Amino acid sequence: MFNKILIANRGEIALRIIRTCKEMGIKTVAVYSAADRDSLHVRFADEAVCIGPAASKDSYLKIPQIISAAEITNADAIHPGYGFLAENAEFSRVCTEYGIKFIGASADMINAMGDKATAKATMKEAGVPTIPGSEGLLSSIEEGMAIAEEAGYPIMLKATAGGGGKGMRLVKDKSEFKKAWDDARQEAGAAFGNDGLYLEKFVEEPRHVEIQIIGDSRGKACHLSERDCSIQRRHQKLVEETPSPIVSQELREKMGQAAIKGAEAIKYEGAGTVEFLVDKHGDFYFMEMNTRIQVEHPITEEVTDFDLIKEQIKVAAGVEISGRNYYPQLHSIECRINAEDPANDFRPSPGKITNLHLPGGHGVRVDSHVYAGYVIPPFYDSMIAKLIVTGQTREEAIVRMKRALQEMVIEGIKTTIPFHIKLMDDPSFKSGNFTTKFLDTFDFSDL
Amino acid sequence: MFNKILIANRGEIALRIIRTCKEMGIKTVAVYSAADRDSLHVRFADEAVCIGPAASKDSYLKIPQIISAAEITNADAIHPGYGFLAENAEFSRVCTEYGIKFIGASADMINAMGDKATAKATMKEAGVPTIPGSEGLLSSIEEGMAIAEEAGYPIMLKATAGGGGKGMRLVKDKSEFKKAWDDARQEAGAAFGNDGLYLEKFVEEPRHVEIQIIGDSRGKACHLSERDCSIQRRHQKLVEETPSPIVSQELREKMGQAAIKGAEAIKYEGAGTVEFLVDKHGDFYFMEMNTRIQVEHPITEEVTDFDLIKEQIKVAAGVEISGRNYYPQLHSIECRINAEDPANDFRPSPGKITNLHLPGGHGVRVDSHVYAGYVIPPFYDSMIAKLIVTGQTREEAIVRMKRALQEMVIEGIKTTIPFHIKLMDDPSFKSGNFTTKFLDTFDFSDL
Repeated sequence: MFNKILIANRGEIALRIIRTCKEMGIKTVAVYSAADRDSLHVRFADEAVCIGPAASKDSYLKIPQIISAAEITNADAIHPGYGFLAENAEFSRVCTEYGIKFIGASADMINAMGDKATAKATMKEAGVPTIPGSEGLLSSIEEGMAIAEEAGYPIMLKATAGGGGKGMRLVKDKSEFKKAWDDARQEAGAAFGNDGLYLEKFVEEPRHVEIQIIGDSRGKACHLSERDCSIQRRHQKLVEETPSPIVSQELREKMGQAAIKGAEAIKYEGAGTVEFLVDKHGDFYFMEMNTRIQVEHPITEEVTDFDLIKEQIKVAAGVEISGRNYYPQLHSIECRINAEDPANDFRPSPGKITNLHLPGGHGVRVDSHVYAGYVIPPFYDSMIAKLIVTGQTREEAIVRMKRALQEMVIEGIKTTIPFHIKLMDDPSFKSGNFTTKFLDTFDFSDL
Repeated sequence: MFNKILIANRGEIALRIIRTCKEMGIKTVAVYSAADRDSLHVRFADEAVCIGPAASKDSYLKIPQIISAAEITNADAIHPGYGFLAENAEFSRVCTEYGIKFIGASADMINAMGDKATAKATMKEAGVPTIPGSEGLLSSIEEGMAIAEEAGYPIMLKATAGGGGKGMRLVKDKSEFKKAWDDARQEAGAAFGNDGLYLEKFVEEPRHVEIQIIGDSRGKACHLSERDCSIQRRHQKLVEETPSPIVSQELREKMGQAAIKGAEAIKYEGAGTVEFLVDKHGDFYFMEMNTRIQVEHPITEEVTDFDLIKEQIKVAAGVEISGRNYYPQLHSIECRINAEDPANDFRPSPGKITNLHLPGGHGVRVDSHVYAGYVIPPFYDSMIAKLIVTGQTREEAIVRMKRALQEMVIEGIKTTIPFHIKLMDDPSFKSGNFTTKFLDTFDFSDL
């Protein structure tokens, strides 16, 4: 097992990883930017190294500084968390070169899954269902239109280097194709420096359902069932739950086996997530694979009782998995509490938390790095807490979430709590019958 | 189901009950003394009624005021929590008389189980194993000495109205009997206004193991397995865990069936606990039955996934239990965080909490009514939080507890946190091999 792990991240996930390391008896090194001097991850780690000024590109994204911090502190592994360098192939490669174990995917796997067109082709070859569409990059608008015709409209144009909804366009029929093509290319070029596009059949009444998998160094994988992440605003997840209200045990097993097949085809090592779209017929299609721990991993932990960070560290250290799959015994929901004003287009609301009361009691878990008096810096992600509740049924989890949200006090800044409270009362949400477009028509004006 | 429940209590248990009521859609009424004006139970209840000045006898123990508060607010049920009036037969009787459902045992049952000699005789008749000793009250010192001789020394003298260790004396042999008899009578008379004594054989290497039961209005009962509460200081529980490290599945089922037999013999309704001593041979003896929810109930919730307050309210409303028993799926530990100085004989340490950070993350639950800036009044119980952790194994739960304790920051007052951290590192505690006398020889001096 590792002696000392450097955590190349900040915020709640850095604290989350430190917690598990402490429980495993592994020493920890925090890295931090000048803006994060007073953060809890700095306070709770055994050692802490300042790696630069506030801007991410000069600190949390600065590979040489992080490698130096690991060398100075003699860390034998690096956990990248999510975001920042978690899916950076170069970082994974450099860690390996310096003899530091990267707790995540290899550079090759990150590259293979990071490029969406390559990822789709790889999964298709492994026998994982994929959405009909172009095989990789489109070479011209003419080729795009021909493939769209074959797959059948509506179709979706997507940037191959994309993420967070950038460079995506829905095309309802042929007449819209040219404008969408031009817009998506331009947006992708600006955002990613890569204007390559591919296209896919548009999935009707889609649900975002993802399968958590863990692969070990032998290339053997298991699944820990699904998470439903259909509650999204502009492709950003706001609420996740497991099990999915629309997934039967039969579908769960089919999706789980597909995810395992995909992971084993690339001898995937570590914790990963295979994201699928499920349509109204219960057919599912591979979307992408995330080669890292995800924000929403705690709901899987709550219903399977596994500590996923612990499992991640174990497989990175060479421990073999049992090969068993794990199924939800309870129902768990996560709300992402962001420092944003939901009534004003989710505008970021950094600043000082003047008063704080976190909810507690049966079935309530809070993962957060904030405290009363903490100043949320404007430089990073606006998520300040994950509120996770678990109950015997979905109904119990929803009423528990509402109770916990009402108990949560965060003063001095705006948060997404009012949105979540309203959502827990929403009849469509409560019915379990909604799609990824649910929030497109949600009324945020009275929050 | 009830429309509105008045909670005749304060602190964490009042908040705990409000949380469940909110989840069940039941309105709540808090009652509070003048000293508890700024308490969270007052803030989170739908309505709140001040019932008197700080002293418990003038507020939380004042039956007429509480009944008036229930009448004014039109509450149809009263939950007494633990302590205060939870096992007061008169209060249960008056509630019934006023047509208010008392969420707890009937006056008859409270009387039957509140008098320890009667309770023992009742359980013995029901076939529950009891400790050899006197059948009820001892009429004279001569009778006591004769029975002690028959049961075999060492024996224990106990006050029939006792609790919290008051009026108890260990007698190792005949020569010590007279002094112990006189001392125990005097102490019992002073503490309870009742100097009646009984005696029991002293159990060797005892563990305190209790069985959680729930009975319904038909008189049918089920059990939810055991809690080990052997970590006690002067008969006050400080740490509880489930499952017990010394209880096998066979012993669990034997004790569970004995508890059910006892509960069904008296047609027990509600949540209750049958406390046993288990000796070094694995034999177990009835100690007492608590006709209320207990402080340590959350560990049972964490390993069975039941909300015990919800179950308590349901059976009070006439819902029938399934008759199934429930077994621990995980391992859970609770530490009672008291505002006391463990290095100074656990001297109470009331005052203002100047800084507060509660631990979070996977497997961590906090039940607490305190917040940063809260002033702990000197009038009541010194428990300010229950820290409950759950893991797949006892070993995982212990390291998680240590991690959570180290993360917990309560400034401005002294707390029992340093004691708990030391305990989690103690080889005897970690081995699971200790008795109820464990803390008698514990070194508190370096805390």
